[in-house]
Amino acid sequence: MSRTLARPLASLRSLRCARTSLPLGIRKASNAPPDAAALKKLPDIDASKLEITKTTSPKEPRPANELIFGRNFTDHMLSIEWTASDGWLPPRITPYQNLSLDPATCVLHYAFEAFEGMKAYKDSTGALRLFRPDKNMARLNRSAARIALPAFDGAQFIELIKRFVALDARFIPAQRGYSLYLRPNIIGTQRTLGVGPPGSALLYLIASPVGPYYPSGFKAVSLEATTESVRAWPGGVGDKKLGANYAPGIVPQMEAARRGFAQNLWLFKEGEEEYVTEVGTMNLFAVFKDKATGQKELITAPLDGTILDGVTRDSILALARERLVPEGWKVTERRFTMNEVNQAATDGTLEEVFGAGTAAVVSPVRNISWRGKLVDCGLKGDSEAGELAQRVKGWIEGIQYGDEEHPWSVKI
Amino acid sequence: MSRTLARPLASLRSLRCARTSLPLGIRKASNAPPDAAALKKLPDIDASKLEITKTTSPKEPRPANELIFGRNFTDHMLSIEWTASDGWLPPRITPYQNLSLDPATCVLHYAFEAFEGMKAYKDSTGALRLFRPDKNMARLNRSAARIALPAFDGAQFIELIKRFVALDARFIPAQRGYSLYLRPNIIGTQRTLGVGPPGSALLYLIASPVGPYYPSGFKAVSLEATTESVRAWPGGVGDKKLGANYAPGIVPQMEAARRGFAQNLWLFKEGEEEYVTEVGTMNLFAVFKDKATGQKELITAPLDGTILDGVTRDSILALARERLVPEGWKVTERRFTMNEVNQAATDGTLEEVFGAGTAAVVSPVRNISWRGKLVDCGLKGDSEAGELAQRVKGWIEGIQYGDEEHPWSVKI
Repeated sequence: MSRTLARPLASLRSLRCARTSLPLGIRKASNAPPDAAALKKLPDIDASKLEITKTTSPKEPRPANELIFGRNFTDHMLSIEWTASDGWLPPRITPYQNLSLDPATCVLHYAFEAFEGMKAYKDSTGALRLFRPDKNMARLNRSAARIALPAFDGAQFIELIKRFVALDARFIPAQRGYSLYLRPNIIGTQRTLGVGPPGSALLYLIASPVGPYYPSGFKAVSLEATTESVRAWPGGVGDKKLGANYAPGIVPQMEAARRGFAQNLWLFKEGEEEYVTEVGTMNLFAVFKDKATGQKELITAPLDGTILDGVTRDSILALARERLVPEGWKVTERRFTMNEVNQAATDGTLEEVFGAGTAAVVSPVRNISWRGKLVDCGLKGDSEAGELAQRVKGWIEGIQYGDEEHPWSVKI
Repeated sequence: MSRTLARPLASLRSLRCARTSLPLGIRKASNAPPDAAALKKLPDIDASKLEITKTTSPKEPRPANELIFGRNFTDHMLSIEWTASDGWLPPRITPYQNLSLDPATCVLHYAFEAFEGMKAYKDSTGALRLFRPDKNMARLNRSAARIALPAFDGAQFIELIKRFVALDARFIPAQRGYSLYLRPNIIGTQRTLGVGPPGSALLYLIASPVGPYYPSGFKAVSLEATTESVRAWPGGVGDKKLGANYAPGIVPQMEAARRGFAQNLWLFKEGEEEYVTEVGTMNLFAVFKDKATGQKELITAPLDGTILDGVTRDSILALARERLVPEGWKVTERRFTMNEVNQAATDGTLEEVFGAGTAAVVSPVRNISWRGKLVDCGLKGDSEAGELAQRVKGWIEGIQYGDEEHPWSVKI
């Protein structure tokens, strides 16, 4: 019905109902399926058309030591609507506000939703930086396409993110280790229950200031290998950052937590072998040492469709190939099993294990509970991190915070 | 922040902003994780506490011949909020209206959503009936539990559905074949980005009047077997009615449609065998005839965790065991392969194939495109349905519309 409205509702409503929790009007939510008109070349995202409505009631940023991941947000949000008939509409930055969604909206029933996690950093000069945002844009496009949501020009969206981060930069504490977590999210907004491709969508971005994952240094965690539930499989969608991959992971995670483990470790079973895939919502790396030659090998599961193509994972592999291979390391993407990990632990050739993701960069693993054994992951004594985990964190944060000038760090 | 509000927002807003598309206030959306307080016995759904706010602008029901599935809704909606600290709040029937959701709400990011599909029927005396609603309630509880959403008392929810259907009964055309499609949906409403169990949820129901799936008699469809994408996996969530199972099915369905097929057929590959699982969003049945004895066998895939536990599927199996076995049939739940189906088609022992689900009851299949072959599913000449599909549809609709008194048909 709102297809006939030419003007955005949000600003009108903001005037009428200031100081309540207001709906962001979806201007073009469709209740008609996409039709042949969609075949003509439709407008892509155009950052030059950005409309900004600043908040009239700016928030007080919370003290840096009270920040909790994803619980408090900045003053504004960025949103861009799409319809199958009109393409991408002009982007808007508005005050952070509620979305007003018909209860039949397809995101609420069929999980038409794909997201990204990325961060903006303040460097020692106070300049703002993004880390490899092109990787997030490419992945969000792949994720969206897999669930029939529209593609978009990632470079234009990065321009909009820069405008957004500059506007809300006062929420990023200047101290090292702090950053602004950015959450782009694309949802299907068609207002019908038929199971089909959405005729309309909303791409939006919200931002939450966050502190260091390890405020007082690394803390190695214990994992529980999940042997009943399976996160992903060949021909499935485990390599896409879809909402659909997350809710089903909670109960296995809660079961691990109930037994005292920080995270669960996802395995993929094939015949009698159990392959190591991911840890909770992070990729996993292990370091093996060859018993005969002493050569070290950094190993992680390959992008076979069952694991997420993590930006941190990719960054670690690239830096390791550049910096460790000349030191004599092997860097390998291949399938590896819990049997191998256990065997290496027994042999004393398992040097270290760590998770890798945007939140923590790296997260060292002390041990893994697996089929009644507690597999020790090689940390010496009461050390909280292996040597490589510490080096990798230094490399990546050095780039993120601009200590080392690197093409991955994009200045705003 | 709205945790401190004792009164619902929706009614207040309805007074202030009548005739716009209004937010249904989420009274208790949490931004705190569930805590130990949740261990005390919290209130379950209590139908006696229902609060009803009737619409002041009733809609004109659309003409029966213009009804499209899931596109138009009745005047009202039913909603019940839950929080980890307070349990289920008093149920409300309100005018059909938009939900007002924080853009960080977990349903929009991590697919915390599970739904049901069921119908209300008007019988020849004008009485209203539901069909096996207890089965939908049990499944919705199983689905919700799998993604850490709260359980609820299904019998109390059925009482609420009865009140709702009675209130909006004028939207159900009296003609045979029409019904009111009911969509219960439960969503996580926690307003934080941390990946964990939602501290708040909303269970709601909307309703869409629908016409007969086959307005002018059966129309057999052609299917395309999907060999690249895989819908479900052992240890996955394919047996739950989660949003997460639906968005990933759209692209394979669109690919089948682009090649001229009405639906895709989901296979599960194990070694060299490809097992038949489901068709689009329906269960699948086949009828084989034993070459030697002439005995007929009704067969469907078993509930091994990779297929949906359909209410229509269960009803067909129960009626077939009661009514076909005495006629000499075998009724079998077991894994079966496309090779078997193809072999039977070649041998002339494949009698018929049909999908089964709430929308169509049964949906006859003419043929299946599989690995370059077009497997003929046994329909004689230009017949649009096999004998059993017709009988089964008659049995089930006879119960649904009250022609045959049966415990499955629940009078309102």
